[in-house]
Amino acid sequence: MSKLREDAVTIMKQAISAVLPEAAVREALAREDFTARRKKGGRVVVAAIGKAAWRMARAAADSLGASITGAVVTKYEHSMGDIPGLEIFEAGHPVPDGNTIKGTEALLRHVKGLGPDDTVLFLVSGGGSALFELPSEGVSLEDMADVTSQLLACGADIVEINTIRKHLSSVKGGRFAQLCAPAHVFMTVLSDVLGDRLDSIASGPAWPDSSTSAEALAIVKKYGLNIPPHLLEILKSETPKTLDNVTAVVTGSVTALCAAAAKAAEGLGYSPLLLTTTLACEARDAGSFLASIAHEICASGRPIKAPCAVIAGGETVVHLTGKGKGGRNQELALSAGEGISGLKNVVIASVGSDGTDGPTDAAGGLVDGETKEQLKGLRISIPEVLKNNDAYTALKAVDSLLITGPTGTNVNDFALALIG
Amino acid sequence: MSKLREDAVTIMKQAISAVLPEAAVREALAREDFTARRKKGGRVVVAAIGKAAWRMARAAADSLGASITGAVVTKYEHSMGDIPGLEIFEAGHPVPDGNTIKGTEALLRHVKGLGPDDTVLFLVSGGGSALFELPSEGVSLEDMADVTSQLLACGADIVEINTIRKHLSSVKGGRFAQLCAPAHVFMTVLSDVLGDRLDSIASGPAWPDSSTSAEALAIVKKYGLNIPPHLLEILKSETPKTLDNVTAVVTGSVTALCAAAAKAAEGLGYSPLLLTTTLACEARDAGSFLASIAHEICASGRPIKAPCAVIAGGETVVHLTGKGKGGRNQELALSAGEGISGLKNVVIASVGSDGTDGPTDAAGGLVDGETKEQLKGLRISIPEVLKNNDAYTALKAVDSLLITGPTGTNVNDFALALIG
Repeated sequence: MSKLREDAVTIMKQAISAVLPEAAVREALAREDFTARRKKGGRVVVAAIGKAAWRMARAAADSLGASITGAVVTKYEHSMGDIPGLEIFEAGHPVPDGNTIKGTEALLRHVKGLGPDDTVLFLVSGGGSALFELPSEGVSLEDMADVTSQLLACGADIVEINTIRKHLSSVKGGRFAQLCAPAHVFMTVLSDVLGDRLDSIASGPAWPDSSTSAEALAIVKKYGLNIPPHLLEILKSETPKTLDNVTAVVTGSVTALCAAAAKAAEGLGYSPLLLTTTLACEARDAGSFLASIAHEICASGRPIKAPCAVIAGGETVVHLTGKGKGGRNQELALSAGEGISGLKNVVIASVGSDGTDGPTDAAGGLVDGETKEQLKGLRISIPEVLKNNDAYTALKAVDSLLITGPTGTNVNDFALALIG
Repeated sequence: MSKLREDAVTIMKQAISAVLPEAAVREALAREDFTARRKKGGRVVVAAIGKAAWRMARAAADSLGASITGAVVTKYEHSMGDIPGLEIFEAGHPVPDGNTIKGTEALLRHVKGLGPDDTVLFLVSGGGSALFELPSEGVSLEDMADVTSQLLACGADIVEINTIRKHLSSVKGGRFAQLCAPAHVFMTVLSDVLGDRLDSIASGPAWPDSSTSAEALAIVKKYGLNIPPHLLEILKSETPKTLDNVTAVVTGSVTALCAAAAKAAEGLGYSPLLLTTTLACEARDAGSFLASIAHEICASGRPIKAPCAVIAGGETVVHLTGKGKGGRNQELALSAGEGISGLKNVVIASVGSDGTDGPTDAAGGLVDGETKEQLKGLRISIPEVLKNNDAYTALKAVDSLLITGPTGTNVNDFALALIG
């Protein structure tokens, strides 16, 4: 493997390492505001929810020592064993079930009766909205499910659906943080939501709610929902609009992923140029655009002089036109391979931080200026492959798949153009 | 119109002005090597070919004064009157006709018998390949047409076609420069070809030919072409592989267009960031990508701090899925309008330097963070409009078309994200 390819792989691995649950938790616990609170004494209760909850809790337990208590609610088959001091629950995802309620109730018992010097270390990851739920008193999970399906059937948008659900929940829309008071909630978020809105992630259990009771009732009226009177009464109770006992840190996110990639590139001697963390266009066209930037760098030293690393994070899309095997990162890379054909000292890679890209065992792809010719030698045409959405097969044929296995984190993707 | 929109229009106009035929010629004539030759004495003969030939020749005549002679061969209806000292011809495009031969022969008479101190000011613009042609002795225009249609029928590629045509021509593949010797040829190119390969533009009348006679004969054999013996003999004569009497300047090109845009932006207080001059992806995805860069700049000041101008030149493509009215620049801009919705102080524009974009009277489009909401107020959805390729109608409804009229130049497009 060429030096440039090796460096691209190193950058990719280091970037993903920086946003693994363990790294995210370690970084959060090293924050001054958390350290300062701990020095004042008081207990630390761990409350971990989401698909990465077990790994985040394990990392917290390792950092904080044996003095912790708390609970973990994660998806079935996502617990990897006991953690001393913590109760571990597995529950349904994406549809909550009885274990969701059990786990959530247990977690709430741990944060009950805390004092002003105590801290709830609230570890939040993707899937938290389904995995952490206790309907308000008088509301059943079935009520929740019925209202949700009515909303979906009448074409309500996601903001409207969440407005109703937050007002029927005893933990969402900031209510969990209220239940923790007077203890302080130190929330650490591993985010898979572009833009990182804290009132949206896991439906914002520890963040002031921007939706109101009046809005919830207006949605009921707008769609003529069939809501029993006791639920209507519950919708009238307001979610918190301010919270003075919460600190939030988003440590794992596509922004952190890109920042780590930039740092890793710099460490290897490449000047980083971070273009965006909200890439959202068609995958193959993002690849073509990046290739045209690589051309400019080779031809004129603009927008940045080589050796350099151009980085774009986000989540591209693929419109299926064929029946092949692939994923958005593989299509981005393969399309870039067409664009950089013949350029020496250019590598373009794209990778999903969760280690999976589409329905394949690859995390992404990695191409250089020779990739197109290599494929041509095998009678494989890149435009034809893309038409059939078969990037996996083509990249595999020239040993250009990136394979990491599942990483245990999920903070979107990033693409990298490395010019030596 | 907002200040930011006004500035975007100013940058666009200044950039196009810099690549008009007149500006391209003025810049070339100001070059030290041309000025030095003129000071040594000798005659200047103007030889102008292509769709912009008349305007380039007019500019040269204005700069050089009454002392010039020469000829102009341009497309029908592209001459705008007499130019003292010059013979003006209009001829067929894209298919050469009898007037092509007449014009080319007249032009060759002007460069015949020149001395080593004389200069041929060779002004080349798009369409020059068809408009400047004199088949080798013994070859007729009909022979040329017959060979070309055989090549097209058997699936030969453009490189193969040009290899044959150059070897059957008395002016292409560097032969024109040979005919000018011992005079010096000062070639000024207004280029519409991405990459600016001087042996491709107008089939390289004044540039060493990279194709060989042996290659031409191999192509005849490869496809089993039906070529009469007298043409085969002519194919055996070699085109020049070196030329020591030519200086070439590419003054009008997408690179010059982007450089002028950057300079204009800087003049208005925006730091320029030129991403590429070879943009070639789907128009709407280029718009989305630029929008995501604008987001990053607003959110984090990367890759460059506002106020700034992100510039990307090239020629995007549109895959038609609907029956509306639009063009690639309008689609790019409209798609960007979806992406930057809600952002204050961001404008994204895209424009074709020839002043026409698709089959419309607009040169491109110009959107800001309010465009999407304005369209929504008119019940127009950007994704729906793009699906129907109807960007013209949508942009017109919110007064966001860029209309310049035909500019008389054609050096591809550029897109601009202006962040205030």
